Amino acid sequence: MVESQEIELQGHIIDSGIMTQLFDRVMDMGGNFEILVFDIGKEKTDPSYARLRIAASNKEKLRSILSELHRLGARPLEVKDVHLVAAGADHVVPKGFYTTSNHPTQIKSCGEWIPVEAIEMDFLIVVDPALKRAVARPLGKVRKGDLVVVGEQGVNVSYPERPREQSTFEFMHGTVSPERPSETLIAKIAKEILEVRKKGGKIAVVGGPAIIHTGADKALAGMIRMGYVDVLFAGNALATHDIEYNLYGTSLGMDISTGNPVMGGHKHHLYAISEIMRAGSIKKAVEKGVITGGIMYECVKKNVPFVLAGSIRDDGPLPDVITDVMVAQDAMREQIKGCSLVLMVATLLHSIAVGNCLPSNVKTVCVDINPAHLTKLMDRGTTQAIGIVSDAGTFLPLLARQLEIQSGCVQK
Amino acid sequence: MVESQEIELQGHIIDSGIMTQLFDRVMDMGGNFEILVFDIGKEKTDPSYARLRIAASNKEKLRSILSELHRLGARPLEVKDVHLVAAGADHVVPKGFYTTSNHPTQIKSCGEWIPVEAIEMDFLIVVDPALKRAVARPLGKVRKGDLVVVGEQGVNVSYPERPREQSTFEFMHGTVSPERPSETLIAKIAKEILEVRKKGGKIAVVGGPAIIHTGADKALAGMIRMGYVDVLFAGNALATHDIEYNLYGTSLGMDISTGNPVMGGHKHHLYAISEIMRAGSIKKAVEKGVITGGIMYECVKKNVPFVLAGSIRDDGPLPDVITDVMVAQDAMREQIKGCSLVLMVATLLHSIAVGNCLPSNVKTVCVDINPAHLTKLMDRGTTQAIGIVSDAGTFLPLLARQLEIQSGCVQK
Amino acid sequence: MVESQEIELQGHIIDSGIMTQLFDRVMDMGGNFEILVFDIGKEKTDPSYARLRIAASNKEKLRSILSELHRLGARPLEVKDVHLVAAGADHVVPKGFYTTSNHPTQIKSCGEWIPVEAIEMDFLIVVDPALKRAVARPLGKVRKGDLVVVGEQGVNVSYPERPREQSTFEFMHGTVSPERPSETLIAKIAKEILEVRKKGGKIAVVGGPAIIHTGADKALAGMIRMGYVDVLFAGNALATHDIEYNLYGTSLGMDISTGNPVMGGHKHHLYAISEIMRAGSIKKAVEKGVITGGIMYECVKKNVPFVLAGSIRDDGPLPDVITDVMVAQDAMREQIKGCSLVLMVATLLHSIAVGNCLPSNVKTVCVDINPAHLTKLMDRGTTQAIGIVSDAGTFLPLLARQLEIQSGCVQK
Amino acid sequence: MVESQEIELQGHIIDSGIMTQLFDRVMDMGGNFEILVFDIGKEKTDPSYARLRIAASNKEKLRSILSELHRLGARPLEVKDVHLVAAGADHVVPKGFYTTSNHPTQIKSCGEWIPVEAIEMDFLIVVDPALKRAVARPLGKVRKGDLVVVGEQGVNVSYPERPREQSTFEFMHGTVSPERPSETLIAKIAKEILEVRKKGGKIAVVGGPAIIHTGADKALAGMIRMGYVDVLFAGNALATHDIEYNLYGTSLGMDISTGNPVMGGHKHHLYAISEIMRAGSIKKAVEKGVITGGIMYECVKKNVPFVLAGSIRDDGPLPDVITDVMVAQDAMREQIKGCSLVLMVATLLHSIAVGNCLPSNVKTVCVDINPAHLTKLMDRGTTQAIGIVSDAGTFLPLLARQLEIQSGCVQK
Repeated sequence: MVESQEIELQGHIIDSGIMTQLFDRVMDMGGNFEILVFDIGKEKTDPSYARLRIAASNKEKLRSILSELHRLGARPLEVKDVHLVAAGADHVVPKGFYTTSNHPTQIKSCGEWIPVEAIEMDFLIVVDPALKRAVARPLGKVRKGDLVVVGEQGVNVSYPERPREQSTFEFMHGTVSPERPSETLIAKIAKEILEVRKKGGKIAVVGGPAIIHTGADKALAGMIRMGYVDVLFAGNALATHDIEYNLYGTSLGMDISTGNPVMGGHKHHLYAISEIMRAGSIKKAVEKGVITGGIMYECVKKNVPFVLAGSIRDDGPLPDVITDVMVAQDAMREQIKGCSLVLMVATLLHSIAVGNCLPSNVKTVCVDINPAHLTKLMDRGTTQAIGIVSDAGTFLPLLARQLEIQSGCVQK
Repeated sequence: MVESQEIELQGHIIDSGIMTQLFDRVMDMGGNFEILVFDIGKEKTDPSYARLRIAASNKEKLRSILSELHRLGARPLEVKDVHLVAAGADHVVPKGFYTTSNHPTQIKSCGEWIPVEAIEMDFLIVVDPALKRAVARPLGKVRKGDLVVVGEQGVNVSYPERPREQSTFEFMHGTVSPERPSETLIAKIAKEILEVRKKGGKIAVVGGPAIIHTGADKALAGMIRMGYVDVLFAGNALATHDIEYNLYGTSLGMDISTGNPVMGGHKHHLYAISEIMRAGSIKKAVEKGVITGGIMYECVKKNVPFVLAGSIRDDGPLPDVITDVMVAQDAMREQIKGCSLVLMVATLLHSIAVGNCLPSNVKTVCVDINPAHLTKLMDRGTTQAIGIVSDAGTFLPLLARQLEIQSGCVQK
Repeated sequence: MVESQEIELQGHIIDSGIMTQLFDRVMDMGGNFEILVFDIGKEKTDPSYARLRIAASNKEKLRSILSELHRLGARPLEVKDVHLVAAGADHVVPKGFYTTSNHPTQIKSCGEWIPVEAIEMDFLIVVDPALKRAVARPLGKVRKGDLVVVGEQGVNVSYPERPREQSTFEFMHGTVSPERPSETLIAKIAKEILEVRKKGGKIAVVGGPAIIHTGADKALAGMIRMGYVDVLFAGNALATHDIEYNLYGTSLGMDISTGNPVMGGHKHHLYAISEIMRAGSIKKAVEKGVITGGIMYECVKKNVPFVLAGSIRDDGPLPDVITDVMVAQDAMREQIKGCSLVLMVATLLHSIAVGNCLPSNVKTVCVDINPAHLTKLMDRGTTQAIGIVSDAGTFLPLLARQLEIQSGCVQK
Repeated sequence: MVESQEIELQGHIIDSGIMTQLFDRVMDMGGNFEILVFDIGKEKTDPSYARLRIAASNKEKLRSILSELHRLGARPLEVKDVHLVAAGADHVVPKGFYTTSNHPTQIKSCGEWIPVEAIEMDFLIVVDPALKRAVARPLGKVRKGDLVVVGEQGVNVSYPERPREQSTFEFMHGTVSPERPSETLIAKIAKEILEVRKKGGKIAVVGGPAIIHTGADKALAGMIRMGYVDVLFAGNALATHDIEYNLYGTSLGMDISTGNPVMGGHKHHLYAISEIMRAGSIKKAVEKGVITGGIMYECVKKNVPFVLAGSIRDDGPLPDVITDVMVAQDAMREQIKGCSLVLMVATLLHSIAVGNCLPSNVKTVCVDINPAHLTKLMDRGTTQAIGIVSDAGTFLPLLARQLEIQSGCVQK
């Protein structure tokens, strides 16, 4: 027997590609559709409205199709309240719990639409009907008695629409090509950074140790000093090599000014960690005059917060490194709040970690020498991204220079 | 004024390339050498002996040259006792502390040579002269009062010599070429595994989630069942996707049998984690019959220990994941003890982490689709490595099949 | 002043994504649209019909928008005859000439629709109104007096629609992920090959020398012997290394059975070429018993034609290599005719060259260790492609085995 | 029965690693050695001398070992004249012919040492004893009656020694790491270019189309205008996209200034080719004022010769493209003569082709976004190379700027 249900969609559903995706998924899942109403916006600025009957051979199939369409913003004609079930114990949640996308989301509780706070990909929604609050929360943080949303009923996702105006950032991008005009793109990114700055927006940098190895540390330190960075996310390696370079002029034992290994240099990174352990922390090492320059130094001097997340490949690590990764995630979440632009340079691990915490409307710029890494990064989370296949060692100096030129600090 | 000192070397110093490296480094550092004695082994099995006078323009330079030669096994003619200094506080160690290589190392204490236990790259050496014991220890684990070796005096490194016989494994390898005869190499690796097994050696597998995504999980599960794996190192992702596949037939929401995304599949990995949280642990989930197959299931059934190390990009994570990376490192070290072969498949992070803990005489097989990852992996630690540019999805099934054929379980 | 024109589209224009692309491009180019008629197919099998008014700020802009929409299959309401201009001299063609896509194309001449023969990407259309024939021809082959189509007027492109049924091949694919279930995909490709074979379709293989270096030559030779290959496209390197292997057991001097370089082996590839030069050709070398096995041997024995196209990096080359690349292109075009499946393995150069000659409805399977190569390949020409990130050395043996199993030649 | 022969070596055979390589190869091939004399240079500037007896289990084995050692510069104690055999027909050469390395080589004829002219990898040596001349020649160019050297007897290879002084260029390099200080290296390359220029050396550039796509064309055009390029090697794509950009502001239809595809832009590359066909050649198009800027324009204006080698993936091609690859190789050889520095940017195919023609003492700088490409390039031919993992779009502007700064044209 055929089961069916009516749904509706609204917005720029044709030119944002939502309609196409909807048809694709219904057909991919072996379902069927009939178009009941289709009021297409006559001009490009008009929103469209569609009502469709979705059909499938059985209830189970229909439900899974509707669950998929739900994530595209489709909803039943009449929306009921969310279904809430209390967690039986800490992290023991009701089966069939709702998992979030990173798009803006609302739930219906007691007949009222409530926005879901702290939205992030793959979270659960915990609702307090009395306080009329709904919060997205990771599975591991659900406590006994929390009221968890089960199923899609009463949940509404605002699927992002394609921005009307032309943008440097690609919308729901795909392939990353290494063959793009680097200098032009870098100039645009500088412009974007200056605009965010002007609007009082927050800028985050996620960086890998290659920034030091490729000699791009001076450029990043300069950007921090000039006030273009509001928070830094990295690991033990970036901080250690930055400090090693400040103390010994080497990075992983290599002389940055010549590119050659320095004899005895293999000890330097461990000596650098030891000096910070002796001082107590990076901040104290700066205050005591142990460190006198570099990325971490500028962060301390400019009061730019940094989150150094631990990884199983860490040596040492530095006392500032958060070795428990779940604690580090929370620190990242705390600091990422309110960011409107994230610059991810030469690190897959930390970039994915930060990307996981981003709502879908944050702009991201991803720079990596490996096109496959970029593709992986840009598949996640954000709907507006630029990917640049380049090495940190040429990208960051060109960006810093563009920032100087465009901000009027330096003549071209 | 020119400073100089005599040193000596012994062993297969010519054909292992040690002599060449020594000359290179002296010249690279602007030093000078004079050959005083050079008794070259007449035939290829004879060890050679060389005595050289190393000279440099000042004491500082000479010391750093000698420090470098020390790591190649060169030592002063007369060796004095190690210089020991007590740590002033926890992790606050004397300046100029000795940092270990991962080659077998001995120290001289009270005129006697003592082997350094638990040797690992970039550790310090802590000595107990009374007990005549010397142990390698990470910086972060040195406690107040520990007697730490300072400088190279009294430390002897046994730099590895090139094995006489032909070997599948490359010695101090370099470039990794994607264009090598895959099937032939895989057959050799199977042979090597069977030989290690025959000699009672221990085999470790380090694996990434691509093992599941590429459909190689059945092959790895089979290898565990057949008894070819003694310990498994992985992260939250491998275990989660393996369990997701067992519970829902998908991996990250993709139907492994068709390669297509399954509708609603995006929830599966979170549902999988939730089920294990409900059961309490992977082991309990196996015992309760929640999981009925796959890599983790076979590990539990065969009592193969596994270490799941946390990472900041983790979702969940599973209750078995060790979220503090320093605790995870210790667990890895504990389990890696006594391994004679490590198979690293499709994970850079975990492979580097395991590689960091390996003494230089453990054989490693590294498999990755990205030649640059292999080069990075094979630069570390071990002196005997095979690198194969391949995807897990074709490599592991071919390896499992070779093991069956060569062990006589199956006819070709 | 605003200029505008009405256009119409027909077919599965929504679920094939054509409508979305159309809106995108109009907006990207700063144009405007108004929907006049939109008869959407009520059910998924119904074709839709749309009539739109496209507007732009000036004639030039409008023309370039319409030119772009033309390639999506949109056409003016009333179609006039093509505009033909005679070429003034050999290769000297009228400005504004029409350049083809690789989709099926028709032109209107004397009020009649005529299909364009030998369609290929980036060709011109030469029309003979008397004979009622239209042929796609490369720029370099247009002769004085040829009547060349100028502008889009009178040209109709049948933009490919998404196939209704589920397919292994992706439609207008994008990103290539290395993490896909290899064995499953390989089994499907084998199935596809067997189906093409059953229907009497033609199968082409494009291969690079890595097939030999990775030891996959036996698998490919077997596939030729079993009759699964109708034409082989390659370069001097594949043929030379294949013959070198047959004559000396090495490939570029490396012993395929051990993976080690053979001493003296560096001469082998030149010696191999010399032997074929002595024999006169590969065919003669097979007939004289100089070559007794391998890929080229099987081609000769099975009368499978091969095109060996020259490249500037060639040593020798073999007498069979076509050193003029334009002559080689023509030979490729001749042989590619009628192919319904092309298997491209481990060669970017030759795969792109073959891909350039393919009409958009030929299925292609691309195998390469480098995901970026695959993305580049799959961006070209065809609308139905599978990309597999794998090495030839594991892929081809698994494929050959699947062909044996599925065709019933061998038990699993 | 054991066969043996005495050989001798001279030079910096220890610190250049030659001795190590020699021992390695003897052992790898199952041979044995006895050291008869070993006069090691006491100080680093003294040459060493070694006499060894090489032994093997049979004559065949011994011969192949000696053949291998020959390429390292080892030679029998008494050297006889080369063995010459006349070619029986065009390209039909005597079996066992000698194949050259790209190191300086001499042959003994009538008791006299004669240098081999035009040495290049994998050539044969043709000798004219009457004129006392020996010339390296490709297999395909040996004519009937030419006297060809057979076997190694009478041939002496001067294996390159490691340069005494520190060098930016690596000697017999291996692995290429993406993590090197880019700006520092680029400054050094600029310095090297200026030094070559000062000494009147010749500089060649080999370039791929990514130079245009990434917007680095202005930098390269500038370098040509400033006189830093003496010859350009490229293919149809680089020239076409450069001209397309000059004519239409796009490269492969993409607007370089914005990075976005231009509507109608897909025709531009074909239109560009058509315009050059109409003019007759690139030179004529410059003279007629059709092209007014860009890389090819500057070449014509500065009389910098260029070789555009054809490839089977070419569209068009431009009338200047040499479509016969063997003719193109000869043109490359002609122009490469006397070059002392070659800059290879973003092209594997053309770089390998040029590299094949280089004697081993030419310095090469290789720039590519793909580390695997660099490794492949640097394995070939030259003994002094720098590999930089970077994209053309950031590398060339930084290099051009460094040239300006270091030459005093511009202030930092």
